[in-house]
Amino acid sequence: MGKALIIGCGGVASVAIHKCCQNSEVFEEICIASRTVSKCDALKEKLQGTTKTKITTAQVNADNVDELIALINEVKPDVVLNLALPYQDLTIMDACLATKTHYIDTANYEPEDTAKFEYSWQWAYREKFEEAGITALLGSGFDPGVTGVFSAYALKHEFDEINYIDILDCNGGDHGYPFATNFNPEINIREVSAKGSYWEDGHWVETEPMEIKREYNFEGVGEKDMYLLHHEEIESLALNIPGIKRIRFFMTFGQSYLTHLKCLENVGMTSIEPIMYEGKEIIPLQFLKAVLPDPASLGPRTKGKTNIGCIFQGKKDGKEKTYYLYNICDHEECYKEVGSQAVAYTTGVPAMIGAMMVMTGKWNKPGVHNIEEFDPDPFMDALNKWGLPWKETHTPVLVD
Amino acid sequence: MGKALIIGCGGVASVAIHKCCQNSEVFEEICIASRTVSKCDALKEKLQGTTKTKITTAQVNADNVDELIALINEVKPDVVLNLALPYQDLTIMDACLATKTHYIDTANYEPEDTAKFEYSWQWAYREKFEEAGITALLGSGFDPGVTGVFSAYALKHEFDEINYIDILDCNGGDHGYPFATNFNPEINIREVSAKGSYWEDGHWVETEPMEIKREYNFEGVGEKDMYLLHHEEIESLALNIPGIKRIRFFMTFGQSYLTHLKCLENVGMTSIEPIMYEGKEIIPLQFLKAVLPDPASLGPRTKGKTNIGCIFQGKKDGKEKTYYLYNICDHEECYKEVGSQAVAYTTGVPAMIGAMMVMTGKWNKPGVHNIEEFDPDPFMDALNKWGLPWKETHTPVLVD
Repeated sequence: MGKALIIGCGGVASVAIHKCCQNSEVFEEICIASRTVSKCDALKEKLQGTTKTKITTAQVNADNVDELIALINEVKPDVVLNLALPYQDLTIMDACLATKTHYIDTANYEPEDTAKFEYSWQWAYREKFEEAGITALLGSGFDPGVTGVFSAYALKHEFDEINYIDILDCNGGDHGYPFATNFNPEINIREVSAKGSYWEDGHWVETEPMEIKREYNFEGVGEKDMYLLHHEEIESLALNIPGIKRIRFFMTFGQSYLTHLKCLENVGMTSIEPIMYEGKEIIPLQFLKAVLPDPASLGPRTKGKTNIGCIFQGKKDGKEKTYYLYNICDHEECYKEVGSQAVAYTTGVPAMIGAMMVMTGKWNKPGVHNIEEFDPDPFMDALNKWGLPWKETHTPVLVD
Repeated sequence: MGKALIIGCGGVASVAIHKCCQNSEVFEEICIASRTVSKCDALKEKLQGTTKTKITTAQVNADNVDELIALINEVKPDVVLNLALPYQDLTIMDACLATKTHYIDTANYEPEDTAKFEYSWQWAYREKFEEAGITALLGSGFDPGVTGVFSAYALKHEFDEINYIDILDCNGGDHGYPFATNFNPEINIREVSAKGSYWEDGHWVETEPMEIKREYNFEGVGEKDMYLLHHEEIESLALNIPGIKRIRFFMTFGQSYLTHLKCLENVGMTSIEPIMYEGKEIIPLQFLKAVLPDPASLGPRTKGKTNIGCIFQGKKDGKEKTYYLYNICDHEECYKEVGSQAVAYTTGVPAMIGAMMVMTGKWNKPGVHNIEEFDPDPFMDALNKWGLPWKETHTPVLVD
């Protein structure tokens, strides 16, 4: 079918690349590019011989638009799958515009110096992408990503109008450490210490950090505490789901995790202000990262499951209706299949599927679009086929 | 009266030196010696002009017996007051033996590479000190120290026999930080993570770390959680108090303090195993110390009181009797007086008094002795005079 240029070579990228290589009919060729080409080469070496997909690698600084343009002109991909840092979304979009190449990412742009998640920067590219006749698919991970596809699917097949969406993200994994983070602790800490917010009656309602707590009994995991957080897909779903009255996002955190994080914050170990140590400036958070288990080392030892999904409430044929779409993913099975646990797996698989949707022309709509603006059916089929089968119930327990 | 050589210039030494300078009739001259002579010089500069005591300073490596002997021969003190590290007790005792000089310390020897508190090493010097005709007074701080004097006083004046002693060490001080340590966090962590033990019916009973917890309502402080710990004075009191059936030691720790310490331990921040950080070996505990507030900075901001004492149960004239001797000390008042808060004050004042007892000849008994082996009365008078007045009650609430 075609060729993808994949930028980035971290945990999520590794899963997406494994999945592309399982899907050689679509991904006949991929080029893996990152700042550290040796990581790309190592992954290539691991996969070669197990796949019909032709793999090449390249070095690129994704902050540099000219370098990106040169790389795209050399590789000539059908799509660029951006799995680099969120700071680099705009430079990669610029390069796609200059080369008229389709663009897919998993997380919205944020400036490196502020913790401000919003789509405004990327939505500002809408007209340019339309005029160039190319598609930008934003947020093709799990949340955002599959949660938007679930919403579009529910609206298409189950409801005349959706009034309430609760997105529930549960990680029931246990890595056996008293404390460790699945990814950059800085991101974790920002999530927990940031104000929460949800969408209600046409505007944002802000909450104190971790102010709203609920218990929920997740299939495959059990009873967990979950907390209302701000999350980026709320912003686009609020625009794209007509009749919506409220959208909330909840994520599970264990009490022990929160206590450890709070204590580390209290003593100053999460600070990004450097301190002098033996004549050298050291940032406490960077040192903490070095002391904590390497997130990559958690994969082989994480047991348990994730359960992520959306509970919808709305109307069909004039009657009230509820509907819950969710996926349960097993950490150990993911690790066995692709060498990463479920947190990376549930983001990397939808990234591959999003790239496939655009490359095969199933999703082709010039402009900059969030995932729920496309026909959900082929994506829903692909989830079942490529490792994230979904489940549904019309009688979910609701979140009060 | 005479001259004291004080080895060490940390927080406790600073208090003891302030107190010697208030007591110029006894301490006509002191020499302050430590590895870092600039610290001694700074203290000398601060005190000179406020006291009749003549102050000199010297540089000495207390690990080196020959250096210590040379210093003692030069200074010719009546007593050596050892306020250096517990690792250095034996070298200083060797130097006192060689120069036939009386010796006083506040904490028992422990080898630098093991966390083993016991008197065996110092008691092994008994005959040598007897033969040399000089006195070694061990453990003249608060606990050990005043707790031994309290025990001797209770035995002398209140009881025919003491059967139970509970030593209660309460620090109700608040420095306003979520977490900080009054002294080296390594010592704190060792206390909390070590097994506890108490003396009962002629032998040690070992407990799990922090296994035995009690609540106690301390005068001047209020209700506090306290935990049974091993503590060194139990070992000597078990030998020196005839008829004793049980001795326990309890120290207060707040839940927040313990939670922070546990979390830091869990993530590896209290480890003394170096990790590689940017090509350099760094010990996590050392880095943690650098991040935490400097213990010296707590003095001016610590409010509240300490309450340390002993509850005795025994017999007098064939009747059961209880008796509680204790001292309440105010952090802010200590700081105002000597520039240190109560934790250093309650150790430094008895160190000065112990040196005074030996120097004035009130306590003169060649050999190596624990504090309860001497007549408690002049020490008890001195506590009232020099800033640690004691209180008593015959109707204390007992610890179950």
